[in-house]
Amino acid sequence: MAALRLAALAAHLQPSLTSSQSAANPHIHDLNPAYFLPRAAAIEPSAPAILHCDRSNTTISRTYSELAERARRVSVFLLRNYAPGTKIGILSSNTPMFLECLYGIAGSGLTQASFNYRLSAKEIRDVLEISGVTAVFVDIEFLPIVQQAAGELATPIELIVDLDSEDPKDLREFRAAGHLNLVFSEIISSLSTDTTPWDSLHYEDQPEDSLLALAFTSGTTGKPKAVEYTHRGMYLAAMANIIEAELNRSSSGCRYLWTLPMFHAGGWSFPYAVTAVRGLHICLRRIDYDLVWRYLNAGPGKSATHYNAAPTVNLQICEHPSAKRVPEPVMVTVAASPPSPALFKKMVSLNLLPVHTYGMTETYGPISRGYILSEWASESEEQQFKKMARQGHGFLTSRKLRVVKQKSEYSNNPDSLEDVARNGSEIGEVVFQGNICMKGYHNDEEATKKVWDGGWLHSGDLAVVHPDGAIEILDRGKDIIISGGENISSVAVENVLSAHPAILEVAVIGIPDEKFGEKPKAIIILRPEAKSTDPATLTRDLIAFARKHLGGFQVPKDYSFVEDLPKTSTGKIRKKELREA
Amino acid sequence: MAALRLAALAAHLQPSLTSSQSAANPHIHDLNPAYFLPRAAAIEPSAPAILHCDRSNTTISRTYSELAERARRVSVFLLRNYAPGTKIGILSSNTPMFLECLYGIAGSGLTQASFNYRLSAKEIRDVLEISGVTAVFVDIEFLPIVQQAAGELATPIELIVDLDSEDPKDLREFRAAGHLNLVFSEIISSLSTDTTPWDSLHYEDQPEDSLLALAFTSGTTGKPKAVEYTHRGMYLAAMANIIEAELNRSSSGCRYLWTLPMFHAGGWSFPYAVTAVRGLHICLRRIDYDLVWRYLNAGPGKSATHYNAAPTVNLQICEHPSAKRVPEPVMVTVAASPPSPALFKKMVSLNLLPVHTYGMTETYGPISRGYILSEWASESEEQQFKKMARQGHGFLTSRKLRVVKQKSEYSNNPDSLEDVARNGSEIGEVVFQGNICMKGYHNDEEATKKVWDGGWLHSGDLAVVHPDGAIEILDRGKDIIISGGENISSVAVENVLSAHPAILEVAVIGIPDEKFGEKPKAIIILRPEAKSTDPATLTRDLIAFARKHLGGFQVPKDYSFVEDLPKTSTGKIRKKELREA
Repeated sequence: MAALRLAALAAHLQPSLTSSQSAANPHIHDLNPAYFLPRAAAIEPSAPAILHCDRSNTTISRTYSELAERARRVSVFLLRNYAPGTKIGILSSNTPMFLECLYGIAGSGLTQASFNYRLSAKEIRDVLEISGVTAVFVDIEFLPIVQQAAGELATPIELIVDLDSEDPKDLREFRAAGHLNLVFSEIISSLSTDTTPWDSLHYEDQPEDSLLALAFTSGTTGKPKAVEYTHRGMYLAAMANIIEAELNRSSSGCRYLWTLPMFHAGGWSFPYAVTAVRGLHICLRRIDYDLVWRYLNAGPGKSATHYNAAPTVNLQICEHPSAKRVPEPVMVTVAASPPSPALFKKMVSLNLLPVHTYGMTETYGPISRGYILSEWASESEEQQFKKMARQGHGFLTSRKLRVVKQKSEYSNNPDSLEDVARNGSEIGEVVFQGNICMKGYHNDEEATKKVWDGGWLHSGDLAVVHPDGAIEILDRGKDIIISGGENISSVAVENVLSAHPAILEVAVIGIPDEKFGEKPKAIIILRPEAKSTDPATLTRDLIAFARKHLGGFQVPKDYSFVEDLPKTSTGKIRKKELREA
Repeated sequence: MAALRLAALAAHLQPSLTSSQSAANPHIHDLNPAYFLPRAAAIEPSAPAILHCDRSNTTISRTYSELAERARRVSVFLLRNYAPGTKIGILSSNTPMFLECLYGIAGSGLTQASFNYRLSAKEIRDVLEISGVTAVFVDIEFLPIVQQAAGELATPIELIVDLDSEDPKDLREFRAAGHLNLVFSEIISSLSTDTTPWDSLHYEDQPEDSLLALAFTSGTTGKPKAVEYTHRGMYLAAMANIIEAELNRSSSGCRYLWTLPMFHAGGWSFPYAVTAVRGLHICLRRIDYDLVWRYLNAGPGKSATHYNAAPTVNLQICEHPSAKRVPEPVMVTVAASPPSPALFKKMVSLNLLPVHTYGMTETYGPISRGYILSEWASESEEQQFKKMARQGHGFLTSRKLRVVKQKSEYSNNPDSLEDVARNGSEIGEVVFQGNICMKGYHNDEEATKKVWDGGWLHSGDLAVVHPDGAIEILDRGKDIIISGGENISSVAVENVLSAHPAILEVAVIGIPDEKFGEKPKAIIILRPEAKSTDPATLTRDLIAFARKHLGGFQVPKDYSFVEDLPKTSTGKIRKKELREA
């Protein structure tokens, strides 16, 4: 039965994908990362593509042939119902529907916009408006909030609801509750006899500089902006991520665990990178650390081999009661905020090997890596982990990163960008250029011009360049603490305090100070065993500990002990919120 | 001392490579694989880049910083002495000079042409003329032949001689013999105080569709043609080869053994692919099987981890007296002619894991791969090795390959290309399109038009498409045997005979036959232990063996036993020569 079904599905894949080539330049084809899906299904239709536990607690397993076929039906549905140039939204946690729609929208030649499901109704209204979507594929969990948000829009939008459930009862209940929306699973089944061939879809004929997707800045510093991703950019970002995270390791295969939200910065290109190597996408509706460890410990040929996560998420993984050293190395792409050497040491001890990258939504996620060099072998372990925590060098498919002296004014003059000295102390702003940079902010020429000042994409992150050429981020521009005219990197202070045995997690912010303008304050989550310690004793102990590693003006004298820290959906600490509190 | 020297070298690398960006599109940079060298040297200057035993038997070890610095000097030399648009030749075995010049020529913005050192003086004259080179970097071993060839040219060309020796005596002898040519090592040392910065060279500002290199067809079917490689094409070929051959495996590192001639099809993009991951290039003046096994057995952290070779070369490696199973898997990219399942079985038993690819000079070497699928696990070992020997599917960075029904006439009509049935029996020609296809034949519009007939690059190779979509090459168009109106694949017959215990290597060709037009004949190199067998008995035995696996008309009745088979520099058997004999 399964074999017959496979053969039927494979029939749709049979025609060669031959639609698009320019007659003048048949030696060039446009780069399109969505092509990786029909290619994967053509090579190995039976390869496992998706593993997921849905809302009705059913295990969903899909092969590449099935994933491709479902994406094809999404493309056909969109082509029949929406005009060229339409933007289509996705508001969902990490479910099979998300992947099917990513590829389905690309195959229809339309542009995809993925939204953060943690936003408020007001913020969702903003991103719907900024992106100008005509329809949104929405997971049922987020239907109330998107309905609320959409109700306030001038132009109505179509909502296509995914129940993320194979249980027919759930659909009956949905209809009984009076919902008239389109339902994702019904669209898929309604096209079961459709035979539109792949080569009439748009997996190869999109101009490579055209829009593949819109992503949204996380909004730690104001209203979100819609970041434009091109086909070429996503393709070359995916190439770099395959190579750096070793998704192509044939010895263990690739079973990628979706701890990173797919909506975040295009899933750092991993929806495409994993598919390029015919890896398994293990979907997760939310980060459930018990489940993460079950996937990490699922045994040979089954356990997750790769995942991506911010330092705070990795910290939770490492500190979980089920944490134990995994038998085969798991490659972990770490980004989103600067990690501490202490975290890397812990991860390595569990055989969770960090691929330490740095980037931002505007760079498809990762654009640099802290490369681990064999010449460090003779240095102390402490020194090695410290070097691993640097942001390093531009990716293979990026241009070189620069750290330039900050200017107070917008100038649009490339000559005004002067590199800082390679001395590990002069501070400048990280700027990027080239293929894994966004095209611009959608419908916001002003902001685009400003962020591309002088032809380089400005990160807003402050860094130094070490004598060996590696860059190290000190802080977001707005998080650096200026005390008595001296810069204090909140990250550097956090890295020192993280190594203290009482501390689970720490954020350092600047607070007003009469004498010095600002002074550092540490907000700390204690480890369970340290919670009974007297705060005054602990504070004295922490100050003494910090003094061993930091200059006097950098040592926080103010401490507060909390149960939780406010974070973005990717696990960046919202320092703005802490400062305001 | 070494550290000081490194620091001095690194100083040249300090300026950021910031020359080229288009102000209008700062989110796009031109793809240039030569950029991988300054990038590697900037990230890890002390990483070993080259290991070589030179002509004076001295071991040469160069770091990435040293390799980059020498390439930079080559660029500076060329920029000072040759006009833009000049072509620069390389005629050398696999030496450090070859790599330094590949990158040096690219950095000067000129175009590189690498020649086959096995050609006759007459043939070298042809390729010098076709490529229109102004100067040639030549290894001293090939100086006499290139002098003879160059003497017959209308325009004189400059020869820059590499002695491939660190022994000063060799230079004195060279001068004493009356040679007035420029010497490579003297050019390098003459620029020891030059400080031309990297960002004034052309590692990033070449339009990506411009010419990086010329390579030459191997000429098994006539006069060689100059194949045009672009920067974009070589970059995307390198990406695919990194991913397929797992050059990025961090667990064992990448120590790439240069068994493949660097001149052949741009070294299949490996000069760039290996450098992209900061791998070690282990150079070899020629394939010395003792030395190959010494490198394969050099121990942890030292032994070669990857090499590329044609089936015939792999056969020699597997049959060598030193052959024994290597402890860590070595990834072997195999191409150049269809391999036999028997060879793959032998290689796997030695832990030499084949990455079975297929391509031609016109496709930067590999453009397809015979992917190994996990669904084969339940099949017999014999069946699995048979499937591994198929040419499979287009590379990640290629478009899909097609197998189209052959036409007798040139038509330039894409609609005239009709795909063969996916039934494993209908025979057609393999055609390619897209980024890893050559731009054209240099200065040969007629041949370019013909090979790109209908907008697809015609391989001249005959193949079938199996029901699972994998392609399998049966023969070069000219090697297929037509007997009584039936096609006989010489490769299929060879694959069967290769499994016979008496046979080391076999070539099957068509010979004239009164009744059937043609009939198959097998030309065989016996294993040493079979050489004493009576030929008549052996022939009877081979016929009986072949009958078990082949239809009667496919079974050769004619056998000849030889000591050697004529081969091209990459190990393709010259069947034309066999047929003429």
